[in-house]
Amino acid sequence: MARSSEVMMDAPQLMTFMREVFQQVADDFNVEEVKPNEVTIRLIVSEKHLRPGGTVSGPSMFGLADVAAYFATLAMIGPQALAVTTNCSLDFMRKPAAGVDLIATAKLLKLGRQLSVSHVLIYSEGMEEPVAQATMTYAIPPVKSL
Amino acid sequence: MARSSEVMMDAPQLMTFMREVFQQVADDFNVEEVKPNEVTIRLIVSEKHLRPGGTVSGPSMFGLADVAAYFATLAMIGPQALAVTTNCSLDFMRKPAAGVDLIATAKLLKLGRQLSVSHVLIYSEGMEEPVAQATMTYAIPPVKSL
Amino acid sequence: MARSSEVMMDAPQLMTFMREVFQQVADDFNVEEVKPNEVTIRLIVSEKHLRPGGTVSGPSMFGLADVAAYFATLAMIGPQALAVTTNCSLDFMRKPAAGVDLIATAKLLKLGRQLSVSHVLIYSEGMEEPVAQATMTYAIPPVKSL
Amino acid sequence: MARSSEVMMDAPQLMTFMREVFQQVADDFNVEEVKPNEVTIRLIVSEKHLRPGGTVSGPSMFGLADVAAYFATLAMIGPQALAVTTNCSLDFMRKPAAGVDLIATAKLLKLGRQLSVSHVLIYSEGMEEPVAQATMTYAIPPVKSL
Repeated sequence: MARSSEVMMDAPQLMTFMREVFQQVADDFNVEEVKPNEVTIRLIVSEKHLRPGGTVSGPSMFGLADVAAYFATLAMIGPQALAVTTNCSLDFMRKPAAGVDLIATAKLLKLGRQLSVSHVLIYSEGMEEPVAQATMTYAIPPVKSL
Repeated sequence: MARSSEVMMDAPQLMTFMREVFQQVADDFNVEEVKPNEVTIRLIVSEKHLRPGGTVSGPSMFGLADVAAYFATLAMIGPQALAVTTNCSLDFMRKPAAGVDLIATAKLLKLGRQLSVSHVLIYSEGMEEPVAQATMTYAIPPVKSL
Repeated sequence: MARSSEVMMDAPQLMTFMREVFQQVADDFNVEEVKPNEVTIRLIVSEKHLRPGGTVSGPSMFGLADVAAYFATLAMIGPQALAVTTNCSLDFMRKPAAGVDLIATAKLLKLGRQLSVSHVLIYSEGMEEPVAQATMTYAIPPVKSL
Repeated sequence: MARSSEVMMDAPQLMTFMREVFQQVADDFNVEEVKPNEVTIRLIVSEKHLRPGGTVSGPSMFGLADVAAYFATLAMIGPQALAVTTNCSLDFMRKPAAGVDLIATAKLLKLGRQLSVSHVLIYSEGMEEPVAQATMTYAIPPVKSL
Protein backbone atom coordinates (compact mmCIF):
# COMPACT_ATOMS: atom_id res chain seq x y z
CA MET A 1 0.00 0.00 0.00
CA ALA A 2 1.25 3.45 -0.84
CA ARG A 3 2.22 5.71 2.03
CA SER A 4 0.19 8.82 2.73
CA SER A 5 1.53 12.15 1.50
CA GLU A 6 0.23 13.88 4.63
CA VAL A 7 2.58 15.20 7.31
CA MET A 8 2.33 13.05 10.51
CA MET A 9 4.66 15.14 12.71
CA ASP A 10 4.94 18.93 12.57
CA ALA A 11 7.85 21.12 13.73
CA PRO A 12 6.92 21.22 17.46
CA GLN A 13 6.32 17.45 17.49
CA LEU A 14 9.71 16.81 15.90
CA MET A 15 11.40 19.11 18.46
CA THR A 16 9.67 17.28 21.34
CA PHE A 17 10.74 13.94 19.89
CA MET A 18 14.36 15.15 19.59
CA ARG A 19 14.42 16.35 23.21
CA GLU A 20 13.13 12.98 24.39
CA VAL A 21 15.30 10.71 22.27
CA PHE A 22 18.45 12.73 21.45
CA GLN A 23 18.69 15.10 24.40
CA GLN A 24 22.49 15.49 24.08
CA VAL A 25 22.16 17.27 20.74
CA ALA A 26 18.62 18.69 20.93
CA ASP A 27 19.85 22.19 21.83
CA ASP A 28 22.05 22.28 18.71
CA PHE A 29 19.16 22.07 16.24
CA ASN A 30 15.95 23.87 15.44
CA VAL A 31 13.23 22.58 13.13
CA GLU A 32 12.53 25.60 10.93
CA GLU A 33 9.86 24.27 8.60
CA VAL A 34 8.01 21.04 7.81
CA LYS A 35 6.26 20.44 4.50
CA PRO A 36 5.16 17.19 2.85
CA ASN A 37 8.40 15.39 1.91
CA GLU A 38 10.59 18.36 2.91
CA VAL A 39 12.07 19.52 6.20
CA THR A 40 14.36 22.50 6.98
CA ILE A 41 16.68 22.32 10.01
CA ARG A 42 18.98 24.94 11.54
CA LEU A 43 22.28 24.05 13.17
CA ILE A 44 22.76 26.63 15.92
CA VAL A 45 26.50 26.95 15.49
CA SER A 46 28.53 27.29 18.69
CA GLU A 47 32.16 26.89 19.75
CA LYS A 48 32.00 23.08 19.81
CA HIS A 49 31.06 22.91 16.09
CA LEU A 50 34.03 24.95 14.91
CA ARG A 51 37.46 24.18 13.52
CA PRO A 52 40.41 26.58 13.66
CA GLY A 53 39.65 29.56 11.42
CA GLY A 54 35.99 29.57 12.45
CA THR A 55 34.72 27.09 9.89
CA VAL A 56 32.11 24.47 10.86
CA SER A 57 33.60 20.98 11.25
CA GLY A 58 32.85 18.05 8.94
CA PRO A 59 31.24 15.94 11.68
CA SER A 60 28.91 18.85 12.52
CA MET A 61 27.82 19.06 8.86
CA PHE A 62 27.35 15.30 8.71
CA GLY A 63 25.23 15.49 11.89
CA LEU A 64 23.07 18.24 10.41
CA ALA A 65 22.47 16.32 7.16
CA ASP A 66 21.65 13.21 9.18
CA VAL A 67 19.08 14.98 11.39
CA ALA A 68 17.50 16.71 8.37
CA ALA A 69 17.04 13.48 6.39
CA TYR A 70 15.87 11.58 9.49
CA PHE A 71 13.26 14.22 10.31
CA ALA A 72 12.11 14.42 6.67
CA THR A 73 11.39 10.69 7.05
CA LEU A 74 9.79 10.86 10.52
CA ALA A 75 7.59 13.78 9.49
CA MET A 76 5.89 11.40 7.04
CA ILE A 77 5.85 8.14 9.04
CA GLY A 78 5.62 9.30 12.67
CA PRO A 79 8.04 8.76 15.57
CA GLN A 80 10.32 5.78 14.89
CA ALA A 81 13.38 6.02 17.09
CA LEU A 82 14.72 2.81 15.56
CA ALA A 83 15.15 4.01 11.98
CA VAL A 84 18.89 3.92 11.25
CA THR A 85 21.12 5.59 8.66
CA THR A 86 22.51 2.94 6.31
CA ASN A 87 24.25 5.08 3.69
CA CYS A 88 25.39 8.65 3.32
CA SER A 89 27.27 10.39 0.53
CA LEU A 90 28.55 13.91 1.18
CA ASP A 91 30.10 16.50 -1.14
CA PHE A 92 31.83 19.36 0.65
CA MET A 93 31.72 22.17 -1.89
CA ARG A 94 32.50 25.45 -0.13
CA LYS A 95 33.85 26.58 3.22
CA PRO A 96 31.01 27.56 5.57
CA ALA A 97 30.96 31.25 6.47
CA ALA A 98 32.36 32.01 9.94
CA GLY A 99 29.98 32.99 12.71
CA VAL A 100 26.66 32.10 11.09
CA ASP A 101 24.29 29.16 11.47
CA LEU A 102 23.92 26.41 8.88
CA ILE A 103 20.53 25.70 7.29
CA ALA A 104 19.77 22.29 5.76
CA THR A 105 16.80 21.36 3.60
CA ALA A 106 16.13 17.65 3.12
CA LYS A 107 13.84 16.46 0.33
CA LEU A 108 12.41 12.98 0.64
CA LEU A 109 12.71 11.36 -2.79
CA LYS A 110 11.56 7.88 -1.83
CA LEU A 111 9.63 6.53 1.11
CA GLY A 112 9.31 2.76 0.79
CA ARG A 113 8.41 0.14 3.34
CA GLN A 114 12.04 -0.63 4.16
CA LEU A 115 14.05 2.40 2.99
CA SER A 116 13.79 6.16 2.72
CA VAL A 117 16.08 8.14 0.41
CA SER A 118 16.67 11.91 0.68
CA HIS A 119 18.69 14.69 -0.87
CA VAL A 120 20.00 17.40 1.45
CA LEU A 121 21.44 20.82 0.64
CA ILE A 122 23.31 22.73 3.37
CA TYR A 123 23.75 26.52 3.29
CA SER A 124 25.50 29.07 5.46
CA GLU A 125 22.67 31.36 6.53
CA GLY A 126 22.34 34.25 4.11
CA MET A 127 24.56 32.75 1.40
CA GLU A 128 23.24 31.87 -2.03
CA GLU A 129 25.39 28.87 -2.86
CA PRO A 130 25.33 25.59 -0.92
CA VAL A 131 28.31 24.56 1.23
CA ALA A 132 27.51 20.84 0.97
CA GLN A 133 25.12 18.29 -0.49
CA ALA A 134 24.28 14.90 0.96
CA THR A 135 22.29 11.85 -0.08
CA MET A 136 21.01 9.79 2.85
CA THR A 137 19.37 6.37 3.09
CA TYR A 138 17.49 5.21 6.19
CA ALA A 139 16.39 1.68 6.98
CA ILE A 140 12.91 1.70 8.48
CA PRO A 141 12.25 -1.15 10.91
CA PRO A 142 9.35 -3.40 9.92
CA VAL A 143 6.08 -2.58 11.67
CA LYS A 144 4.97 -5.60 13.68
CA SER A 145 1.45 -6.63 12.87
CA LEU A 146 -0.66 -7.32 15.93
CA MET B 1 38.22 34.88 -10.48
CA ALA B 2 34.63 33.77 -10.37
CA ARG B 3 33.33 31.86 -13.37
CA SER B 4 30.69 33.46 -15.53
CA SER B 5 27.08 32.42 -15.01
CA GLU B 6 26.41 32.66 -18.74
CA VAL B 7 25.82 29.57 -20.87
CA MET B 8 28.81 28.95 -23.19
CA MET B 9 27.34 25.99 -25.14
CA ASP B 10 23.66 25.64 -26.04
CA ALA B 11 21.76 22.43 -26.89
CA PRO B 12 22.80 22.21 -30.59
CA GLN B 13 26.44 22.92 -29.69
CA LEU B 14 26.41 20.16 -27.04
CA MET B 15 24.87 17.71 -29.57
CA THR B 16 27.54 18.58 -32.14
CA PHE B 17 30.27 18.11 -29.53
CA MET B 18 28.82 14.69 -28.55
CA ARG B 19 28.73 13.53 -32.17
CA GLU B 20 32.37 14.53 -32.63
CA VAL B 21 33.79 13.17 -29.39
CA PHE B 22 31.45 10.34 -28.31
CA GLN B 23 30.05 9.15 -31.61
CA GLN B 24 29.37 5.60 -30.35
CA VAL B 25 26.73 6.83 -27.94
CA ALA B 26 25.60 10.10 -29.56
CA ASP B 27 22.46 8.53 -31.04
CA ASP B 28 21.34 7.35 -27.59
CA PHE B 29 20.99 10.85 -26.15
CA ASN B 30 19.21 14.09 -26.90
CA VAL B 31 19.90 17.41 -25.21
CA GLU B 32 16.41 18.62 -24.32
CA GLU B 33 17.14 21.91 -22.57
CA VAL B 34 20.08 24.02 -21.45
CA LYS B 35 19.80 26.71 -18.78
CA PRO B 36 22.47 28.35 -16.63
CA ASN B 37 23.73 25.60 -14.30
CA GLU B 38 21.07 23.12 -15.45
CA VAL B 39 20.84 20.69 -18.34
CA THR B 40 18.12 18.16 -19.26
CA ILE B 41 19.05 15.06 -21.27
CA ARG B 42 16.87 12.30 -22.77
CA LEU B 43 18.03 8.70 -23.01
CA ILE B 44 16.34 7.35 -26.13
CA VAL B 45 15.70 3.87 -24.75
CA SER B 46 16.20 0.99 -27.17
CA GLU B 47 16.70 -2.77 -26.96
CA LYS B 48 20.37 -2.48 -25.91
CA HIS B 49 19.49 -0.49 -22.76
CA LEU B 50 17.03 -3.05 -21.42
CA ARG B 51 17.18 -5.87 -18.90
CA PRO B 52 14.76 -8.82 -18.90
CA GLY B 53 11.29 -7.55 -17.97
CA GLY B 54 11.79 -4.35 -19.96
CA THR B 55 13.48 -2.30 -17.28
CA VAL B 56 16.41 -0.01 -18.16
CA SER B 57 19.79 -1.42 -17.04
CA GLY B 58 21.94 0.09 -14.29
CA PRO B 59 24.84 0.91 -16.64
CA SER B 60 22.44 2.78 -18.94
CA MET B 61 21.22 4.88 -16.01
CA PHE B 62 24.80 5.54 -14.90
CA GLY B 63 25.66 6.59 -18.46
CA LEU B 64 22.72 8.99 -18.56
CA ALA B 65 23.62 10.60 -15.21
CA ASP B 66 27.21 10.90 -16.37
CA VAL B 67 26.32 12.63 -19.65
CA ALA B 68 23.87 14.97 -17.89
CA ALA B 69 26.40 16.12 -15.27
CA TYR B 70 29.17 16.38 -17.88
CA PHE B 71 27.04 18.54 -20.16
CA ALA B 72 25.85 20.71 -17.24
CA THR B 73 29.57 21.42 -16.70
CA LEU B 74 30.50 21.90 -20.37
CA ALA B 75 27.53 24.20 -20.95
CA MET B 76 29.20 26.64 -18.53
CA ILE B 77 32.91 26.19 -19.39
CA GLY B 78 32.87 25.31 -23.10
CA PRO B 79 34.09 22.17 -24.89
CA GLN B 80 36.61 20.31 -22.70
CA ALA B 81 36.85 16.71 -23.87
CA LEU B 82 39.39 16.01 -21.13
CA ALA B 83 37.17 16.61 -18.10
CA VAL B 84 36.85 13.26 -16.32
CA THR B 85 34.39 11.83 -13.81
CA THR B 86 36.15 11.29 -10.47
CA ASN B 87 33.25 10.32 -8.20
CA CYS B 88 29.67 9.23 -8.59
CA SER B 89 27.09 8.19 -6.02
CA LEU B 90 23.85 6.65 -7.27
CA ASP B 91 20.60 5.78 -5.48
CA PHE B 92 18.30 3.50 -7.45
CA MET B 93 14.88 4.24 -6.01
CA ARG B 94 12.22 2.85 -8.35
CA LYS B 95 12.04 0.51 -11.32
CA PRO B 96 11.96 2.50 -14.58
CA ALA B 97 8.71 2.16 -16.50
CA ALA B 98 8.93 -0.25 -19.46
CA GLY B 99 8.94 1.16 -22.98
CA VAL B 100 9.50 4.83 -22.22
CA ASP B 101 12.55 7.10 -22.39
CA LEU B 102 14.42 8.32 -19.33
CA ILE B 103 14.83 12.05 -18.67
CA ALA B 104 17.67 13.36 -16.50
CA THR B 105 18.08 16.86 -15.14
CA ALA B 106 21.51 17.79 -13.79
CA LYS B 107 21.96 20.85 -11.59
CA LEU B 108 25.45 22.25 -11.24
CA LEU B 109 25.98 23.05 -7.55
CA LYS B 110 29.63 23.98 -7.75
CA LEU B 111 31.89 25.01 -10.58
CA GLY B 112 35.42 25.53 -9.29
CA ARG B 113 38.71 25.74 -11.10
CA GLN B 114 39.50 22.05 -10.53
CA LEU B 115 36.16 20.37 -9.78
CA SER B 116 32.50 20.57 -10.72
CA VAL B 117 29.79 18.99 -8.54
CA SER B 118 26.26 18.21 -9.72
CA HIS B 119 23.03 16.63 -8.53
CA VAL B 120 21.05 14.60 -11.07
CA LEU B 121 17.48 13.34 -10.92
CA ILE B 122 16.35 10.68 -13.43
CA TYR B 123 12.68 10.14 -14.34
CA SER B 124 10.80 7.73 -16.55
CA GLU B 125 9.10 10.03 -19.02
CA GLY B 126 5.63 10.95 -17.79
CA MET B 127 6.15 9.69 -14.22
CA GLU B 128 6.05 12.01 -11.24
CA GLU B 129 8.55 10.31 -8.96
CA PRO B 130 12.25 9.91 -9.78
CA VAL B 131 13.71 6.47 -10.54
CA ALA B 132 17.23 7.45 -9.45
CA GLN B 133 19.36 10.26 -8.07
CA ALA B 134 23.06 10.76 -8.63
CA THR B 135 25.78 13.07 -7.36
CA MET B 136 28.67 13.50 -9.79
CA THR B 137 32.10 15.13 -9.48
CA TYR B 138 34.22 16.04 -12.50
CA ALA B 139 37.88 16.99 -12.51
CA ILE B 140 38.49 19.86 -14.90
CA PRO B 141 41.95 19.90 -16.47
CA PRO B 142 43.93 23.08 -15.76
CA VAL B 143 43.79 25.67 -18.50
CA LYS B 144 47.27 26.39 -19.80
CA SER B 145 48.07 30.06 -19.64
CA LEU B 146 49.66 31.47 -22.79
CA MET C 1 19.44 -16.30 12.49
CA ALA C 2 22.95 -15.72 11.22
CA ARG C 3 23.65 -16.52 7.59
CA SER C 4 25.98 -19.37 6.75
CA SER C 5 29.55 -18.55 5.75
CA GLU C 6 29.55 -21.39 3.22
CA VAL C 7 29.53 -20.71 -0.52
CA MET C 8 26.14 -21.68 -2.05
CA MET C 9 27.02 -21.03 -5.71
CA ASP C 10 30.43 -21.68 -7.25
CA ALA C 11 31.92 -20.14 -10.42
CA PRO C 12 30.22 -22.47 -12.95
CA GLN C 13 26.86 -22.08 -11.19
CA LEU C 14 27.17 -18.28 -11.28
CA MET C 15 28.06 -18.42 -15.01
CA THR C 16 25.02 -20.63 -15.71
CA PHE C 17 22.79 -18.26 -13.74
CA MET C 18 24.14 -15.26 -15.70
CA ARG C 19 23.48 -16.97 -19.06
CA GLU C 20 19.91 -17.72 -18.02
CA VAL C 21 19.00 -14.38 -16.47
CA PHE C 22 21.28 -11.78 -18.11
CA GLN C 23 21.96 -13.34 -21.50
CA GLN C 24 22.59 -9.98 -23.20
CA VAL C 25 25.73 -9.40 -21.15
CA ALA C 26 26.77 -12.94 -20.19
CA ASP C 27 29.47 -13.08 -22.88
CA ASP C 28 31.10 -9.93 -21.51
CA PHE C 29 31.99 -11.42 -18.12
CA ASN C 30 33.82 -14.40 -16.71
CA VAL C 31 33.68 -15.53 -13.08
CA GLU C 32 37.36 -16.02 -12.23
CA GLU C 33 37.19 -17.11 -8.61
CA VAL C 34 34.65 -17.61 -5.83
CA LYS C 35 35.61 -17.68 -2.15
CA PRO C 36 33.48 -17.14 0.96
CA ASN C 37 32.46 -13.45 0.88
CA GLU C 38 34.69 -12.69 -2.13
CA VAL C 39 34.22 -13.01 -5.88
CA THR C 40 36.55 -12.05 -8.74
CA ILE C 41 35.05 -11.19 -12.15
CA ARG C 42 36.70 -10.43 -15.49
CA LEU C 43 35.29 -7.94 -17.98
CA ILE C 44 36.28 -9.28 -21.39
CA VAL C 45 36.90 -5.88 -22.96
CA SER C 46 35.77 -5.49 -26.57
CA GLU C 47 35.03 -2.63 -28.95
CA LYS C 48 31.64 -1.82 -27.38
CA HIS C 49 33.22 -1.10 -23.95
CA LEU C 50 35.68 1.47 -25.25
CA ARG C 51 35.78 5.26 -25.46
CA PRO C 52 37.92 7.20 -27.93
CA GLY C 53 41.58 6.67 -27.01
CA GLY C 54 40.99 3.04 -26.09
CA THR C 55 39.96 3.56 -22.47
CA VAL C 56 37.10 1.54 -20.97
CA SER C 57 33.88 3.58 -20.58
CA GLY C 58 32.39 4.57 -17.23
CA PRO C 59 29.16 2.58 -17.78
CA SER C 60 31.26 -0.55 -18.50
CA MET C 61 33.13 -0.08 -15.21
CA PHE C 62 29.86 0.50 -13.35
CA GLY C 63 28.46 -2.68 -14.93
CA LEU C 64 31.50 -4.68 -13.85
CA ALA C 65 31.34 -3.43 -10.24
CA ASP C 66 27.61 -4.17 -10.20
CA VAL C 67 28.03 -7.77 -11.42
CA ALA C 68 30.92 -8.39 -9.01
CA ALA C 69 28.99 -7.20 -5.94
CA TYR C 70 25.82 -8.99 -7.06
CA PHE C 71 27.67 -12.28 -7.52
CA ALA C 72 29.50 -11.87 -4.19
CA THR C 73 26.01 -11.72 -2.66
CA LEU C 74 24.47 -14.55 -4.71
CA ALA C 75 27.45 -16.82 -4.03
CA MET C 76 26.43 -16.74 -0.36
CA ILE C 77 22.61 -16.75 -0.60
CA GLY C 78 21.93 -18.71 -3.81
CA PRO C 79 20.17 -17.62 -7.03
CA GLN C 80 17.94 -14.58 -6.36
CA ALA C 81 17.23 -12.84 -9.63
CA LEU C 82 15.19 -10.23 -7.76
CA ALA C 83 17.94 -8.71 -5.64
CA VAL C 84 18.35 -5.11 -6.79
CA THR C 85 21.10 -2.51 -6.48
CA THR C 86 19.93 0.31 -4.24
CA ASN C 87 23.12 2.37 -3.85
CA CYS C 88 26.48 2.62 -5.54
CA SER C 89 29.39 4.96 -4.93
CA LEU C 90 32.24 4.94 -7.44
CA ASP C 91 35.68 6.58 -7.40
CA PHE C 92 37.41 6.67 -10.77
CA MET C 93 41.09 6.88 -9.86
CA ARG C 94 43.16 6.03 -12.93
CA LYS C 95 42.63 5.62 -16.65
CA PRO C 96 42.27 1.93 -17.53
CA ALA C 97 45.11 0.58 -19.69
CA ALA C 98 44.19 0.24 -23.38
CA GLY C 99 43.65 -3.19 -24.83
CA VAL C 100 43.51 -5.26 -21.65
CA ASP C 101 40.66 -6.77 -19.64
CA LEU C 102 39.44 -5.36 -16.33
CA ILE C 103 39.45 -7.53 -13.20
CA ALA C 104 37.14 -6.73 -10.27
CA THR C 105 37.24 -8.26 -6.80
CA ALA C 106 34.18 -7.73 -4.61
CA LYS C 107 34.35 -8.32 -0.87
CA LEU C 108 31.09 -8.84 0.96
CA LEU C 109 31.30 -6.78 4.17
CA LYS C 110 27.73 -7.31 5.34
CA LEU C 111 25.09 -9.85 4.50
CA GLY C 112 21.91 -9.06 6.41
CA ARG C 113 18.36 -10.21 5.87
CA GLN C 114 17.43 -7.14 3.83
CA LEU C 115 20.72 -5.67 2.58
CA SER C 116 24.15 -6.73 1.41
CA VAL C 117 27.08 -4.30 1.34
CA SER C 118 30.28 -4.83 -0.66
CA HIS C 119 33.53 -3.12 -1.51
CA VAL C 120 34.87 -3.58 -5.04
CA LEU C 121 38.32 -2.85 -6.45
CA ILE C 122 38.79 -2.78 -10.24
CA TYR C 123 42.18 -3.30 -11.90
CA SER C 124 43.46 -3.27 -15.47
CA GLU C 125 44.86 -6.78 -15.88
CA GLY C 126 48.55 -6.82 -15.00
CA MET C 127 48.59 -3.40 -13.29
CA GLU C 128 49.38 -2.98 -9.63
CA GLU C 129 47.22 0.02 -8.79
CA PRO C 130 43.41 0.01 -8.97
CA VAL C 131 41.58 2.03 -11.65
CA ALA C 132 38.40 2.37 -9.57
CA GLN C 133 36.76 1.49 -6.29
CA ALA C 134 33.07 1.01 -5.65
CA THR C 135 30.81 0.44 -2.68
CA MET C 136 27.55 -1.34 -3.56
CA THR C 137 24.37 -2.03 -1.59
CA TYR C 138 21.81 -4.64 -2.68
CA ALA C 139 18.28 -5.03 -1.36
CA ILE C 140 17.47 -8.70 -0.91
CA PRO C 141 13.79 -9.55 -1.35
CA PRO C 142 12.19 -11.15 1.70
CA VAL C 143 12.03 -14.94 1.55
CA LYS C 144 8.43 -16.08 1.76
CA SER C 145 7.97 -18.61 4.52
CA LEU C 146 5.96 -21.69 3.47
CA MET D 1 56.66 13.10 -11.23
CA ALA D 2 55.47 10.13 -9.23
CA ARG D 3 55.13 10.57 -5.49
CA SER D 4 57.46 8.64 -3.21
CA SER D 5 56.15 5.51 -1.49
CA GLU D 6 58.09 6.33 1.66
CA VAL D 7 56.36 7.45 4.85
CA MET D 8 57.01 11.18 5.52
CA MET D 9 55.27 11.41 8.92
CA ASP D 10 55.24 8.62 11.50
CA ALA D 11 52.77 8.09 14.37
CA PRO D 12 54.35 10.55 16.86
CA GLN D 13 54.67 13.21 14.14
CA LEU D 14 51.00 12.81 13.20
CA MET D 15 49.98 13.07 16.89
CA THR D 16 52.06 16.25 17.29
CA PHE D 17 50.50 17.72 14.14
CA MET D 18 46.99 16.92 15.44
CA ARG D 19 47.67 18.58 18.79
CA GLU D 20 48.89 21.72 17.02
CA VAL D 21 46.22 22.02 14.37
CA PHE D 22 43.14 20.24 15.76
CA GLN D 23 43.59 20.62 19.48
CA GLN D 24 39.84 20.40 20.23
CA VAL D 25 39.71 16.78 19.10
CA ALA D 26 43.31 15.64 19.58
CA ASP D 27 42.50 13.85 22.86
CA ASP D 28 39.80 11.79 21.16
CA PHE D 29 42.18 10.00 18.79
CA ASN D 30 45.33 7.92 18.93
CA VAL D 31 47.47 7.03 15.93
CA GLU D 32 47.97 3.28 16.37
CA GLU D 33 50.07 2.40 13.35
CA VAL D 34 51.52 4.03 10.23
CA LYS D 35 52.62 2.02 7.20
CA PRO D 36 53.15 3.11 3.59
CA ASN D 37 49.66 3.97 2.27
CA GLU D 38 47.92 2.71 5.42
CA VAL D 39 47.15 4.29 8.78
CA THR D 40 45.26 2.88 11.80
CA ILE D 41 43.51 5.29 14.19
CA ARG D 42 41.72 4.65 17.50
CA LEU D 43 38.71 6.68 18.58
CA ILE D 44 38.92 6.78 22.39
CA VAL D 45 35.19 6.54 22.98
CA SER D 46 33.81 8.68 25.81
CA GLU D 47 30.41 9.96 26.89
CA LYS D 48 30.30 12.72 24.25
CA HIS D 49 30.54 10.17 21.38
CA LEU D 50 27.55 8.11 22.52
CA ARG D 51 23.90 7.96 21.62
CA PRO D 52 21.18 6.57 23.92
CA GLY D 53 21.74 2.83 24.29
CA GLY D 54 25.51 3.25 24.39
CA THR D 55 26.15 3.14 20.64
CA VAL D 56 28.68 5.50 19.03
CA SER D 57 27.04 8.37 17.12
CA GLY D 58 27.15 8.79 13.35
CA PRO D 59 29.06 12.09 13.49
CA SER D 60 31.73 10.42 15.68
CA MET D 61 32.15 7.64 13.10
CA PHE D 62 32.32 10.19 10.30
CA GLY D 63 34.97 12.12 12.25
CA LEU D 64 37.01 8.96 12.76
CA ALA D 65 36.89 8.00 9.06
CA ASP D 66 37.82 11.57 8.16
CA VAL D 67 40.88 11.67 10.44
CA ALA D 68 42.01 8.21 9.29
CA ALA D 69 41.88 9.09 5.59
CA TYR D 70 43.44 12.52 6.21
CA PHE D 71 46.35 11.02 8.15
CA ALA D 72 46.84 8.26 5.54
CA THR D 73 47.33 11.13 3.08
CA LEU D 74 49.53 13.31 5.32
CA ALA D 75 51.73 10.34 6.24
CA MET D 76 52.77 10.22 2.58
CA ILE D 77 52.93 13.96 1.70
CA GLY D 78 53.91 15.63 4.98
CA PRO D 79 52.01 18.22 7.05
CA GLN D 80 49.40 20.02 4.92
CA ALA D 81 46.82 21.61 7.16
CA LEU D 82 45.01 22.91 4.09
CA ALA D 83 44.03 19.61 2.52
CA VAL D 84 40.22 19.43 2.62
CA THR D 85 37.70 16.62 2.38
CA THR D 86 35.71 16.97 -0.83
CA ASN D 87 33.68 13.74 -0.87
CA CYS D 88 32.77 11.02 1.57
CA SER D 89 30.55 7.98 1.18
CA LEU D 90 29.67 6.01 4.31
CA ASP D 91 27.93 2.66 4.78
CA PHE D 92 26.76 2.00 8.33
CA MET D 93 26.61 -1.78 8.52
CA ARG D 94 26.41 -2.84 12.17
CA LYS D 95 25.75 -1.22 15.52
CA PRO D 96 29.03 -0.49 17.32
CA ALA D 97 29.53 -2.50 20.50
CA ALA D 98 28.82 -0.52 23.69
CA GLY D 99 31.71 0.55 25.88
CA VAL D 100 34.61 -0.18 23.53
CA ASP D 101 36.80 2.01 21.33
CA LEU D 102 36.50 2.13 17.54
CA ILE D 103 39.48 1.27 15.35
CA ALA D 104 39.71 2.59 11.77
CA THR D 105 42.17 1.52 9.10
CA ALA D 106 42.49 3.77 6.05
CA LYS D 107 44.14 2.51 2.88
CA LEU D 108 45.35 5.10 0.41
CA LEU D 109 44.32 3.88 -3.05
CA LYS D 110 45.36 6.95 -5.00
CA LEU D 111 47.69 9.81 -4.25
CA GLY D 112 47.67 12.27 -7.15
CA ARG D 113 48.82 15.84 -7.36
CA GLN D 114 45.33 17.24 -6.71
CA LEU D 115 43.39 14.42 -5.05
CA SER D 116 43.88 11.52 -2.66
CA VAL D 117 41.36 8.66 -2.46
CA SER D 118 41.10 6.22 0.46
CA HIS D 119 39.02 3.29 1.67
CA VAL D 120 38.36 3.09 5.41
CA LEU D 121 37.05 0.18 7.49
CA ILE D 122 35.85 0.86 11.05
CA TYR D 123 35.67 -1.87 13.71
CA SER D 124 34.53 -2.03 17.32
CA GLU D 125 37.68 -3.13 19.14
CA GLY D 126 37.78 -6.89 19.44
CA MET D 127 35.01 -7.55 16.89
CA GLU D 128 35.63 -9.42 13.67
CA GLU D 129 33.14 -7.71 11.37
CA PRO D 130 33.31 -4.02 10.44
CA VAL D 131 30.69 -1.55 11.73
CA ALA D 132 31.16 0.85 8.82
CA GLN D 133 33.05 1.47 5.60
CA ALA D 134 33.90 4.83 4.09
CA THR D 135 35.44 6.13 0.89
CA MET D 136 37.06 9.55 1.26
CA THR D 137 38.46 12.04 -1.26
CA TYR D 138 40.79 14.88 -0.26
CA ALA D 139 41.74 17.89 -2.35
CA ILE D 140 45.43 18.67 -1.92
CA PRO D 141 46.31 22.34 -2.35
CA PRO D 142 48.84 23.02 -5.10
CA VAL D 143 52.42 23.39 -3.91
CA LYS D 144 53.71 26.85 -4.79
CA SER D 145 56.93 26.69 -6.71
CA LEU D 146 59.63 29.11 -5.49
